Amino acid sequence: MKKGVIFSGMRPTGKLHLGHLSVLENWVRLQKEYECYYGIVDWHALTTGFEDTTELKENIREMAFDWLSVGIDPEESAVLVQSDVKEHGELHLLLSMITPVSWLERVPTYKEQINQFGQVGKDISTYGFLGYPLLMAADILVYRATAVPVGEDQLPHLELTREIARRFNNIYQTGIMTDPQAILAKVKLLPGIDNRKMSKSYGNDIALNASTEEIHEKVSQMVTDPARIRKTDLGHPEICTVHTYHTFYNEHEVPDICARCTTGQIGCVACKKQLAAKLDQFIAPIREKRAELAAHPEMVEEILQNGAQKAREKASQTMELVREAMRI
Amino acid sequence: MKKGVIFSGMRPTGKLHLGHLSVLENWVRLQKEYECYYGIVDWHALTTGFEDTTELKENIREMAFDWLSVGIDPEESAVLVQSDVKEHGELHLLLSMITPVSWLERVPTYKEQINQFGQVGKDISTYGFLGYPLLMAADILVYRATAVPVGEDQLPHLELTREIARRFNNIYQTGIMTDPQAILAKVKLLPGIDNRKMSKSYGNDIALNASTEEIHEKVSQMVTDPARIRKTDLGHPEICTVHTYHTFYNEHEVPDICARCTTGQIGCVACKKQLAAKLDQFIAPIREKRAELAAHPEMVEEILQNGAQKAREKASQTMELVREAMRI
Ligand code: SF4
Ligand code: SF4
Repeated sequence: MKKGVIFSGMRPTGKLHLGHLSVLENWVRLQKEYECYYGIVDWHALTTGFEDTTELKENIREMAFDWLSVGIDPEESAVLVQSDVKEHGELHLLLSMITPVSWLERVPTYKEQINQFGQVGKDISTYGFLGYPLLMAADILVYRATAVPVGEDQLPHLELTREIARRFNNIYQTGIMTDPQAILAKVKLLPGIDNRKMSKSYGNDIALNASTEEIHEKVSQMVTDPARIRKTDLGHPEICTVHTYHTFYNEHEVPDICARCTTGQIGCVACKKQLAAKLDQFIAPIREKRAELAAHPEMVEEILQNGAQKAREKASQTMELVREAMRI
Repeated sequence: MKKGVIFSGMRPTGKLHLGHLSVLENWVRLQKEYECYYGIVDWHALTTGFEDTTELKENIREMAFDWLSVGIDPEESAVLVQSDVKEHGELHLLLSMITPVSWLERVPTYKEQINQFGQVGKDISTYGFLGYPLLMAADILVYRATAVPVGEDQLPHLELTREIARRFNNIYQTGIMTDPQAILAKVKLLPGIDNRKMSKSYGNDIALNASTEEIHEKVSQMVTDPARIRKTDLGHPEICTVHTYHTFYNEHEVPDICARCTTGQIGCVACKKQLAAKLDQFIAPIREKRAELAAHPEMVEEILQNGAQKAREKASQTMELVREAMRI
């Protein structure tokens, strides 16, 4: 018996990088304890990216490869593509009837767009963009999820979901809508190789399935303590990206590396080599699993179909209850 | 070969009255020439009436009885309940991604609510209320309708539908979305028995299936020329509701009645009796057909299921094209 139901999703932005890993590792951990529904939320991708959808399908597949290669287990969890489960859309529509426009206008992303662009903001904001927090609410509530792993920045969205759920229960005098609780993961943010936020668009990322060569290349480009020119210069690991990475992927050697860096007994090149080797060790199984999956896309296709099937079973039960409560 | 596709719908407001007949007669006429989809749009009923849905199901059934009893032919047209055809919802969601919020805020019904109530208007307006013209667009476009029978007051909505269709075709470089044309029926408005707009809420309506007694009762309450107290008072038929009804249901006796009224040769009681008899003749076959249907609700249920099935076949074809164009 699992202790609750979880929904969580990601927009299909294409191949993932190491910066995404902590969220995924959290998902992997949760699958033993919870009945999990993990969704590649392609409809959400349209709320801002409707004009260019050329890569949407490819991005969905790439994301599925990544999820499965880091240990999301389709035997354990439902891995689904949102648009395969029409119930998300139906619940979104029904919830739209009871959700005040003002609640959605208060959501920070929308408010910023309007504050920044005024009336033009309303011309460039679509109805779908205004409504995406409601679609998120439907994503969660359609599985009657009791918990949602979220980052701090997502808390207002979850709060809105809970408000909408309460309003529904209140109007229709029912208890169908769950009151999903936040599971706040203590996410340690891995920076990009230039020490900014890791992002594909900055080119400072390391792909989840980076090859040995790519890893060495990326690590060699990492910014280090600028005070160190020669090996004998005394270093300051606390401002060095390589050091940060060591704390993630080579934790038990960190004290030794720090000691040698601050006393000028290790050069940055050697230090990076050590990191690259560790990182490669870490990534190797993910890379292999992913290559296996990519060689059998039909298997992944089947996993997604089974996931959608499982999701639809759950979601359609919820929708029956919802329609009954609303008497439609 | 029919010359086009039509969608039209009505919110399930319960039993219809004579004031609704001209729209329905128009629908009946169109079924021979067009492939028609007539929808009882229950989701629309929620855009304003979400708080009390107690009578929604009953209202849907009553409306189906009425439609079928006046000659909507399920062999010819698809008679469907909107919420049975989830594709309406899916297209609504997808169109929401490309429709600027400002386009919806410009729709008169929404603008009025905001102008009248300001910020409070946004608290009492739901996201679904703001979006109902978009749901109407989806209702029409999901069948690739080429024509829509509308009243003058609905023209702005149809124009919005066409704008959204053009925008979709333009963004996705496709021709999937049709450019539905208005079929403006020359509707002669039948007033209520008190000469105001006929409306169940005013109690001035005559039900489509009124019994002989109800007809006599309602006709006897009709307002006439107040100048006539005795039969010999000279009447002014042009201001008399009974006269208006004669022009609808007893056209060829109108000249004679007018002549006798203006010269004081017929009393209002007799004139009303004449009307009631004609009205009863007119309503009798509708009433009988309806009684037959009401005695076999399972037949009507089957008609609605078949209609939804036929509608889903058409709509799911459209959705495949839509998803293909959007590459999702
Ligand atoms: S030795 Fe390592 S920790 Fe020290 S500055 Fe160089 S790369 Fe950074
Ligand atoms: S006689 Fe007939 S038309 Fe004339 S006022 Fe009376 S009800 Fe009206």
